[in-house]
Amino acid sequence: MNTLLLGATGGIGQSLASALAPRASRLWLSGRNGQILASLARDLGAEAVPADLGHELELQALAEEVGPLDLLIFAAGAVSKSGLRELSKADLERLSTANLVGLALALKYLAFNPNSRVVVLGVYPDLISVPGLSLYVATKLGVEGLLNVARKEFRREGVRFCLVRLPAVATQLWEPLGGPPKTALHPDQAALRILEGILAEPMPEVLEVR
Amino acid sequence: MNTLLLGATGGIGQSLASALAPRASRLWLSGRNGQILASLARDLGAEAVPADLGHELELQALAEEVGPLDLLIFAAGAVSKSGLRELSKADLERLSTANLVGLALALKYLAFNPNSRVVVLGVYPDLISVPGLSLYVATKLGVEGLLNVARKEFRREGVRFCLVRLPAVATQLWEPLGGPPKTALHPDQAALRILEGILAEPMPEVLEVR
Repeated sequence: MNTLLLGATGGIGQSLASALAPRASRLWLSGRNGQILASLARDLGAEAVPADLGHELELQALAEEVGPLDLLIFAAGAVSKSGLRELSKADLERLSTANLVGLALALKYLAFNPNSRVVVLGVYPDLISVPGLSLYVATKLGVEGLLNVARKEFRREGVRFCLVRLPAVATQLWEPLGGPPKTALHPDQAALRILEGILAEPMPEVLEVR
Repeated sequence: MNTLLLGATGGIGQSLASALAPRASRLWLSGRNGQILASLARDLGAEAVPADLGHELELQALAEEVGPLDLLIFAAGAVSKSGLRELSKADLERLSTANLVGLALALKYLAFNPNSRVVVLGVYPDLISVPGLSLYVATKLGVEGLLNVARKEFRREGVRFCLVRLPAVATQLWEPLGGPPKTALHPDQAALRILEGILAEPMPEVLEVR
């Protein structure tokens, strides 16, 4: 199972990497922070392939290195808290790249084996539609729209897609929001539930993790 | 009724401008094409205020010129047809600006009177989730997410929001898609149904035009 994890250095990413390591015949870990990535890969016997999701050439090089995939997990993500009146274009670009554009560019270049799986970590839209999160909600709903079309475009290549809806998970993504709620899942718990769900046969189109 | 129409030179935009002219005490028409805008404004006794939705400074200047609004209609929009494998970053930027970011920046700078209305022209997501339209679907779903948060952030200012779901309308937006379907609404028909719906009291949060 040739597996690529995008966003491997994030909170859920690291837990997913650990949980994937014994299951994947070959595990590629990607993210922007090369140092964390290298040490994580060393610990897990995986391979570090740093890339910036906003840079098309880096994604193209990444795709050539990892070859045809059986499993792609898109666990990248960014959040910012600011009202629409205080919106910054820098935040807009950062969230758009991490949550949406990065997936589009990854799908542009990556190759897939027949019967492969693409998994995207998503949200429960109603839970996050709160003041200050307009860009987060917009990019997270946007990526759902992208997935719905990708599903149809990649059907001929035999690629299946799963949107994972996650409740609050205790990661550093919550830092700008004042910390995770007490009910938040531990990232290891979230990772196990995600893997159990997405490795089921047939894989569900939407996996609701509670 | 101090009214601003963003995207006034598009197919639905021009029809909306004509239908709004007799109803608005002051009508501001905006778009990127200054010449079409000027001639449309002259014909309707409206005022042309050209602006590029991607340029923050232009939106800031526009906001100062038009003053507090009673009605904002966001009728801007762009489409491109390309599979995810052929995605171009230029298309990505163009669609993102016209369909999503432009509204975010407009809401950042525009001022509103109490009880004002913001109307965004949207889609039936299922109808457009077809191969080749991933970016269009992503930005159109994204703007719905943005609206759901804007509604909550602007409640205190007394601004109400309406998402208008439109079926196919015979405009030049269909050009890259090989022309509109035979069942497409005429833009004048669409404009009348939109105005009738959004000027109702109370204004619906979602207006489904058929």
